[in-house]
This record gives sequence, C-alpha cells and structure tokens, in this order.
Amino acid sequence: MDYEKDGAEIYRQSFATIRAEADLAAFDPVTAQVVVRMIHACGMVDLAGDVVATPQAVPRARAALRAGAPVLCDAQMVASGITRARLPRDNDVVCTLSDPRVPDLARRLGTTRTAAAVELWGERLDGAVVAIGNAPTALFHLLDHLRTVPWRPAAVLGIPVGFIGAAESKQALVDNDLGLEHVVVRGRRGGSAIVAAAVNATASEVE
Amino acid sequence: MDYEKDGAEIYRQSFATIRAEADLAAFDPVTAQVVVRMIHACGMVDLAGDVVATPQAVPRARAALRAGAPVLCDAQMVASGITRARLPRDNDVVCTLSDPRVPDLARRLGTTRTAAAVELWGERLDGAVVAIGNAPTALFHLLDHLRTVPWRPAAVLGIPVGFIGAAESKQALVDNDLGLEHVVVRGRRGGSAIVAAAVNATASEVE
Repeated sequence: MDYEKDGAEIYRQSFATIRAEADLAAFDPVTAQVVVRMIHACGMVDLAGDVVATPQAVPRARAALRAGAPVLCDAQMVASGITRARLPRDNDVVCTLSDPRVPDLARRLGTTRTAAAVELWGERLDGAVVAIGNAPTALFHLLDHLRTVPWRPAAVLGIPVGFIGAAESKQALVDNDLGLEHVVVRGRRGGSAIVAAAVNATASEVE
Repeated sequence: MDYEKDGAEIYRQSFATIRAEADLAAFDPVTAQVVVRMIHACGMVDLAGDVVATPQAVPRARAALRAGAPVLCDAQMVASGITRARLPRDNDVVCTLSDPRVPDLARRLGTTRTAAAVELWGERLDGAVVAIGNAPTALFHLLDHLRTVPWRPAAVLGIPVGFIGAAESKQALVDNDLGLEHVVVRGRRGGSAIVAAAVNATASEVE
C-alpha cells in the first residue's frame, strides 16, 4: 500500500493540518502549541473550542519541569503516555494508584481509589505539574485536598473524561479560588492521551 | 465539594447515560457492549456512528482471549490501558516498540518504528487479538505484512488516531480482502484509550 512512512514528515503534515483547520485565535503562541498537540492526540480540531487555559499555566508548568519538578498522574496510562525523552530534567513521573495503601485509604475516605491515590502525592505536590486524564473524582479530591495542605502545584492539567462528574470537576477547577494555574477541556471529552500530549508539549518546545 | 464518590455507582450511571444517549441500533448486544465501553473512554456518544465492526469480530476475539491468546499492541499506552484483571487467562499483553532491534529495522524497512515493531510480533500474530490505537503506519504495515506470512489474527481492533493516514488505514482494514475480523472507528478519531477500552470490554462481559 502507498502511504507516508517518514515519521518526521507525518508529524510535520499533521501539525500543518491542525494549524490550518483549528481556530487557535484564543491562545497565545506558547499555549497554542500545547493545544495543537492535544488536538493531535485525539484527532479533533474542534477540541480547541473547549480548551480553557490560564495564560501562565503553560509557562509555569514549563519552568517547573525545567527546575526538575515531578509530573503527578492520576492513572498509569497517563504516565505511560509521557515521552521521557522530552522531559528536560529526567523528571519523575509519579502515579500512586497502584500503591498498596490505596484500597484501604479509599475505604477509610469513602471515595474512589483514584481519589485516594491523590493523598499519597504528599509534599511532592508543591511545585509539581499535575496531570489528571482519567478520573473526575481525582480532580474533585485534589481541589478539596488543597484546602487542607500548604503545598501548591505549579499548574494543574485537569482533563478527566466521562459522563459523571467530568464536566463538573473541570468547571470546579476553572472556578477555583486557590489561584491554581490550569488547562482543562470543558465538557465530557478528555482522557489520558490528551493530557499526556499536554505534558509532552509543555515539556519541550520541539514540535 | 459534593460529588459521586462510589466507583461502582459512577460506572453504573455512566453506562446508563451512554445507553440512553447513544444510537446503538446498528450493533448486536455483544458488540454494543464493546461500543459502550469505547464511548465511555472518550466521552462522546456520537462515536457509535463511526464504529464499524464485523459481526464476528468481538465473539472471535473473546474466544481467542479465553483460549489464552495474546494481545498485540502498537504502543505502550495501549498496553498500559488494558485492565489485567479482566483478562480471562492472564493473557500476555505485548508491545514490541521498545525492542532494541526496532530502530535499525525501521531504517532498513524505510518506515516508522511503530510499523517496524509489527514485524517483531512474528508467529504470535496467529490467533492473536491485535490492538492498534496510535499509529496508522502500524495498521498499514500489518495489512501488507499479512500478505507475506501465513498467520492470521483472531481479530484486529484497528483504531489509530490522527490526521495523516488514520482514516485511510482504517478504511483499508474495512476493505481488506484477507477476511480479517475487525473493529474500527472511521475517520480521524481513535487512540489508545478507545482501543484499550475495546480490549477490556471484549475480555470480560462484566459491565
């Protein structure tokens, strides 16, 4: 079969197609580059219309990574999608979901395991880049948790997916009064591939 | 904040919402259950309109898994999204992309690393469940490769995402004259989360 087999050329054509079709007028160039890669991960140029990003979210997250901050992920699939070679400081990519303490913690807190796993981030939260791509309960729990601890992440890429609580949890992040820098995709859409792409784009300016 | 924290209840409400909103009339009940979980992974009920599945694709893939067949994945993120506890026989989940032979093989074949990695599946292809969620070139290469080897997968879940070759590679799978059972999402949409969800739904009837 006849098809493009040059990986670099596929990337080039993909990003050119996205920039030709997507309406990126709402974003500054630094944030737009992240939105382009989020679109690349899901195949939908109209995603741009649902992205909300505070102007400093990408710059702060990028600076944090350059300073060696970890990436805290709600799901192993998010961690798996982060391209280690793009990380500037061989940064830690942390997912605490499979920690043996999580099931018991979830029972005691009366919540999901993904939400309980957020508690185990501990002081690593301070200055970190948070990447939530699966569970609305993780994002809701993070917003509650941050009222009880002194640590603040550099930015929250809050892009859980789904039908129950996803839209609401992302709106709660947008409306937060904690001063959290954030990138979200409003509504039901989201997921591990989109948030991993946002981390990858933030980690390196190489398109 | 007030939100649903019971994981089982979140699943129940999610699947009820999907079944209320999605048009699943084109699918038999066995395939519909897989489509529901694919929708759950991406948050879009209209995905159903782009899903094409041969009637025997899910039954054959399910039987293969129950017989111990491996799942062959094009990307680590796909492998990472497969819930091991749902697999009936502790089936192998294989991703050859990080095999040290891949970069040289890709150079010699003049193609992407993801496509070259397909060559390393070898005879494990025979009777396997193939799950492609990232690279159109992997799906194109598989279709070419199957003309040169005697092995046939039980089914191909061919759901790469993107702007260059994704729609075309999935159409080529739909149009295949090799008798391949398949599940695809037509067009640009797809990705590791959707194909992993398809594997998870195929692996177990538990919703």
